Amino acid sequence: MPLLDFRSDNVGAVAPQIMAAVMHVNTGTADGYGRDPLTKSLAQTYARAFDADVTVFPVATGTAANAVALSVLTPPWGAVLCHPTAHIHASECGAPEFFTAGAKLIPVPGPQGRIDPDALRQVLDGAGRNQPHRVQPAVLSLTQPTDLGTVYSLDVLATLCAMARDYGLRVHMDGARLANAVATLDCSLADVTWRCGVDILSFGVTKNGGMSADAIIAFDRRLAGPLTFRLRRAGQTFSKMRYAAAQLAAYVDADLYRHLASGANARARCLADGLVGAGVPLVAPVEANEIFCQLSPSTVRQLETVALFHRHANDVVRFVCRWDSDEADADTLVRAVARYGAAGVSS
Amino acid sequence: MPLLDFRSDNVGAVAPQIMAAVMHVNTGTADGYGRDPLTKSLAQTYARAFDADVTVFPVATGTAANAVALSVLTPPWGAVLCHPTAHIHASECGAPEFFTAGAKLIPVPGPQGRIDPDALRQVLDGAGRNQPHRVQPAVLSLTQPTDLGTVYSLDVLATLCAMARDYGLRVHMDGARLANAVATLDCSLADVTWRCGVDILSFGVTKNGGMSADAIIAFDRRLAGPLTFRLRRAGQTFSKMRYAAAQLAAYVDADLYRHLASGANARARCLADGLVGAGVPLVAPVEANEIFCQLSPSTVRQLETVALFHRHANDVVRFVCRWDSDEADADTLVRAVARYGAAGVSS
Amino acid sequence: MPLLDFRSDNVGAVAPQIMAAVMHVNTGTADGYGRDPLTKSLAQTYARAFDADVTVFPVATGTAANAVALSVLTPPWGAVLCHPTAHIHASECGAPEFFTAGAKLIPVPGPQGRIDPDALRQVLDGAGRNQPHRVQPAVLSLTQPTDLGTVYSLDVLATLCAMARDYGLRVHMDGARLANAVATLDCSLADVTWRCGVDILSFGVTKNGGMSADAIIAFDRRLAGPLTFRLRRAGQTFSKMRYAAAQLAAYVDADLYRHLASGANARARCLADGLVGAGVPLVAPVEANEIFCQLSPSTVRQLETVALFHRHANDVVRFVCRWDSDEADADTLVRAVARYGAAGVSS
Amino acid sequence: MPLLDFRSDNVGAVAPQIMAAVMHVNTGTADGYGRDPLTKSLAQTYARAFDADVTVFPVATGTAANAVALSVLTPPWGAVLCHPTAHIHASECGAPEFFTAGAKLIPVPGPQGRIDPDALRQVLDGAGRNQPHRVQPAVLSLTQPTDLGTVYSLDVLATLCAMARDYGLRVHMDGARLANAVATLDCSLADVTWRCGVDILSFGVTKNGGMSADAIIAFDRRLAGPLTFRLRRAGQTFSKMRYAAAQLAAYVDADLYRHLASGANARARCLADGLVGAGVPLVAPVEANEIFCQLSPSTVRQLETVALFHRHANDVVRFVCRWDSDEADADTLVRAVARYGAAGVSS
Repeated sequence: MPLLDFRSDNVGAVAPQIMAAVMHVNTGTADGYGRDPLTKSLAQTYARAFDADVTVFPVATGTAANAVALSVLTPPWGAVLCHPTAHIHASECGAPEFFTAGAKLIPVPGPQGRIDPDALRQVLDGAGRNQPHRVQPAVLSLTQPTDLGTVYSLDVLATLCAMARDYGLRVHMDGARLANAVATLDCSLADVTWRCGVDILSFGVTKNGGMSADAIIAFDRRLAGPLTFRLRRAGQTFSKMRYAAAQLAAYVDADLYRHLASGANARARCLADGLVGAGVPLVAPVEANEIFCQLSPSTVRQLETVALFHRHANDVVRFVCRWDSDEADADTLVRAVARYGAAGVSS
Repeated sequence: MPLLDFRSDNVGAVAPQIMAAVMHVNTGTADGYGRDPLTKSLAQTYARAFDADVTVFPVATGTAANAVALSVLTPPWGAVLCHPTAHIHASECGAPEFFTAGAKLIPVPGPQGRIDPDALRQVLDGAGRNQPHRVQPAVLSLTQPTDLGTVYSLDVLATLCAMARDYGLRVHMDGARLANAVATLDCSLADVTWRCGVDILSFGVTKNGGMSADAIIAFDRRLAGPLTFRLRRAGQTFSKMRYAAAQLAAYVDADLYRHLASGANARARCLADGLVGAGVPLVAPVEANEIFCQLSPSTVRQLETVALFHRHANDVVRFVCRWDSDEADADTLVRAVARYGAAGVSS
Repeated sequence: MPLLDFRSDNVGAVAPQIMAAVMHVNTGTADGYGRDPLTKSLAQTYARAFDADVTVFPVATGTAANAVALSVLTPPWGAVLCHPTAHIHASECGAPEFFTAGAKLIPVPGPQGRIDPDALRQVLDGAGRNQPHRVQPAVLSLTQPTDLGTVYSLDVLATLCAMARDYGLRVHMDGARLANAVATLDCSLADVTWRCGVDILSFGVTKNGGMSADAIIAFDRRLAGPLTFRLRRAGQTFSKMRYAAAQLAAYVDADLYRHLASGANARARCLADGLVGAGVPLVAPVEANEIFCQLSPSTVRQLETVALFHRHANDVVRFVCRWDSDEADADTLVRAVARYGAAGVSS
Repeated sequence: MPLLDFRSDNVGAVAPQIMAAVMHVNTGTADGYGRDPLTKSLAQTYARAFDADVTVFPVATGTAANAVALSVLTPPWGAVLCHPTAHIHASECGAPEFFTAGAKLIPVPGPQGRIDPDALRQVLDGAGRNQPHRVQPAVLSLTQPTDLGTVYSLDVLATLCAMARDYGLRVHMDGARLANAVATLDCSLADVTWRCGVDILSFGVTKNGGMSADAIIAFDRRLAGPLTFRLRRAGQTFSKMRYAAAQLAAYVDADLYRHLASGANARARCLADGLVGAGVPLVAPVEANEIFCQLSPSTVRQLETVALFHRHANDVVRFVCRWDSDEADADTLVRAVARYGAAGVSS
């Protein structure tokens, strides 16, 4: 019997609607590098999805989306402010530094994966504005949901973005799992992005049922030119773009992203409730599709005989639920945990 | 009636064998970022295909393959020697300069898109070896087939590689259409690459029936570490790697690449013969799936009412035949050219 | 009457021996870019000064020395470990990120400006060795004296360097004020550098009586080639190199560096004793020529009417003594502090 | 007897007026990094010299001046158009590529070292404006005098700058020897720069009697911010800036630059006349202080027993006259050439 798989959302399959869209475009010829009709129509498709005039750039990975997006917002002597746990800071092998020609990432702390507004103000006030020996804060990067599986409220998002703007910074959102946040907040894509003050978005598709395409969504038209050249030069402009465009179009068609993410969130909710019921302490509230919780080393070892999951740090593990996670898996996992004893019990 | 489409090989569809492979892996879960069994097995698959111990890295585009491959062969103060028409020099928006942190591309001329060995020696002799104010030749980059649709013979390839080696350079091959060269030369992948002295290969898949994956093939194991980190940092490491790996595996399975390329070459052969028969002067011999020929402006204008193709320069146009080009299209095109009058006639 | 000047050592003049050396070489012609006899002889001069086979590269600034030195020790995907207060991290506008093509600086804490060996081990253990999504620790950068004016003992230096070596890192020393540390430790230049395990040194000259030249000293001959090309390309290779070489030669002639630094240290010792006597709390022990201490805001304001100095942070100020500080200035300053009341008194 | 020295202008000494200025500022203290009064007053000093509101940035080398100046005019995906013989292209080890994060240098030919306006138009027309796969022309870089010792007339300069502007390019002037051109043209610094349409200037000081300072002069105030941060980050901001500022101030005081350059030009004129009289063919007209001429290999060998000079290429040699060249040296050299036989005679 295969192990229960809670490793990540990127271990999951491609959603049937998206696979169907890919197969559907596989007929006849279409111009390359985004000049095909489907890719051209993405602007309209996404304008509807985001209720705004946007430019859309398919890219191969979330890392590319993040790093290229940042590179059009900061000069090389700029600083990108982000949470210490941010993927751009901790898990992209320095991609932002590479694409920005050496900008600096400055961590801004806050509980539960969220940047604290007071901490942000403190960093901004101490950053040495206009002092030539200091890198100059240029971008605030917000991860929604955060890297601890929590979600910023729209109010806090707006507060952070307004503060960034006051200090002359632009705002990037790493939305590798944005659909999961949108499902939680029960808001629109517009609400959680440009209406809060976001200038550019890394829009995740792959983790939530896509195959090999994420997107940069720019809410400021002046960014389109620099993005076009930077992406080409980064080897991120697919020649057979129609296959990426098909994924992106299907993803927002009939709110597929929301449908898939709601399922994942619901399964995570169930699993979290079960774990808490079994006495497992959560590290952060479960507000999307990821669960960070404490388990004793012995429980972890035993659990590894029935399930795959990520050891986050010391006695903290992560379980991720996907659009295609089996509903029964959560129950099975909870029962196993109960059997082996939760963290508070055995440690 | 749709126009005849000779624009490029990237306007074509995904070959059914490759699409089937993509669909086939879309079940269950698989670890991300290349840790899945299929991606891991690519090393063996490609070891057989190349008759050598190789490391294989799927990437999103040929530009990424080229630029990242070059970046592990040259220091920032190095020079990459290539033909003036090379894609890396003329058509990648400076990707090699970006990925190498500012290395310089030095054009080395030669007829019909091929680097001339004497010209190469002259450039190498005049390059100012060890003079600190000069960039230092570090890589010879060969395009096979060339950007004018010609093919290097194995002898010339070996001569150029040996000369590079003598001067302390490494050798990169841009094989965006390598399958077409292999089909022409009727040789093995090994013959045309490492047996000639190639250190690293950009192996094109997308143009010849793939969807969204090309590959870097390293014949020197010491390059694997730097490639791993550079690709991750470049946003070129697909998280759902199995879908890229499936394309790469299917592409060499049962010599699919050769089968597809042979078809394209054959159609190009037919078209070239027809054009020559109609009095059209070729710019370079047709040795793969691309035809560069001269047409008068008026013929070009008339032809554009029935066919799509690329205006290469002034009175030179390019026709590309694909694995999925309709056999009848070549005939139709030739008849149209005959009807409108070839270059020599009408201008 | 001019204000007492304790701002920095770079506000001071050029030492007469160094100015004389500059004037001395101003006759006849000399080849450019370091091919003149004086620059060539620097290798021998510095071999004697460092009791080792070294290569010496004059540069225009300490920032250039640091950033270029780091760039030959780390790949772009590497990490440079340094103290949070390190000049390379806090005060060089991202120069290391620029010259390394985007390496990451990872702060390693420790009291009084010194990296704590346990903290270093913890960072190294948690750095994700060989994990492609993590930048890879490549360099340990030690500042001697530290940015809080303290000095690493030779034992601690050796311990830190050995730990770095065990984990596969190279060691860089930022010795912008190395002469002051050497004077304090009463050791040789060899003792404090390569004998402890340092691979490359930024050797400060400007702050201690030089004019416009610092140096990179490489203890590993294999670094010479990369340094040569990187410096030329960085615009750091003076064409009239003899004038920089004259400064560097004079600086170590008859241990001038030590003589000048001892004077500055002695004056700092006096000033520190006087301040402590007046009830001023030191932030860190005074072990070189810099004093970091606490003063109340009102004292700072009053003191600014008689003296120039650097407000370091909140209620912390910095006083720097130079080779050319007037001996009487320390007394005058202490008397002023006593008059205005020290931090503990007035706040 | 020392050899006659015609190697380069950078083998010469520092002019007494400049050395005196350096010694003059060596008293008391002065704030660092350009905040001292002398450096601050450079803006006014140079505003008078250039009859314009300029910002002045001292740098350590001409390579730094060129590369940093270019980096504020082009995006990384831009192209810098320059003559094939331009120092930035041929002799700076890729510095422009490094500082611009990978922009491309595109050679534009023309006789005698000067860019031909028709060739420039042709390159601009064929550059693929707005095509994402092509680097985008962003800067025209003009060397005045050229790298073959010729001088652009003001008319041609204005024509080239106007053409650049029409195509949306900015204009950089490499004025490593600008004083020599100004002396030849008998024009003002304003005439040869911003009045022709130059946006930014690398103003050479070192070759014409300076010690270790050149300057970037920006005629567009918006460039000042980016230059400030880029220079700091490049390690080009001297901490003891007063010593560089003193050189720059003295250089334009009482038109010293013109006086020194006129002397060098006059000696070059004499030497050129003598060589021509001796039957030596010039490669290009001698319009500044450099002579490029043809000499037979045997003459070169014999001449090397009495003089130092640069072998430019094959049978072309370069003689450079300096502000401090001995007047008699030209005669001695001519007599030697006459004795050994000129190129046309002995070869």
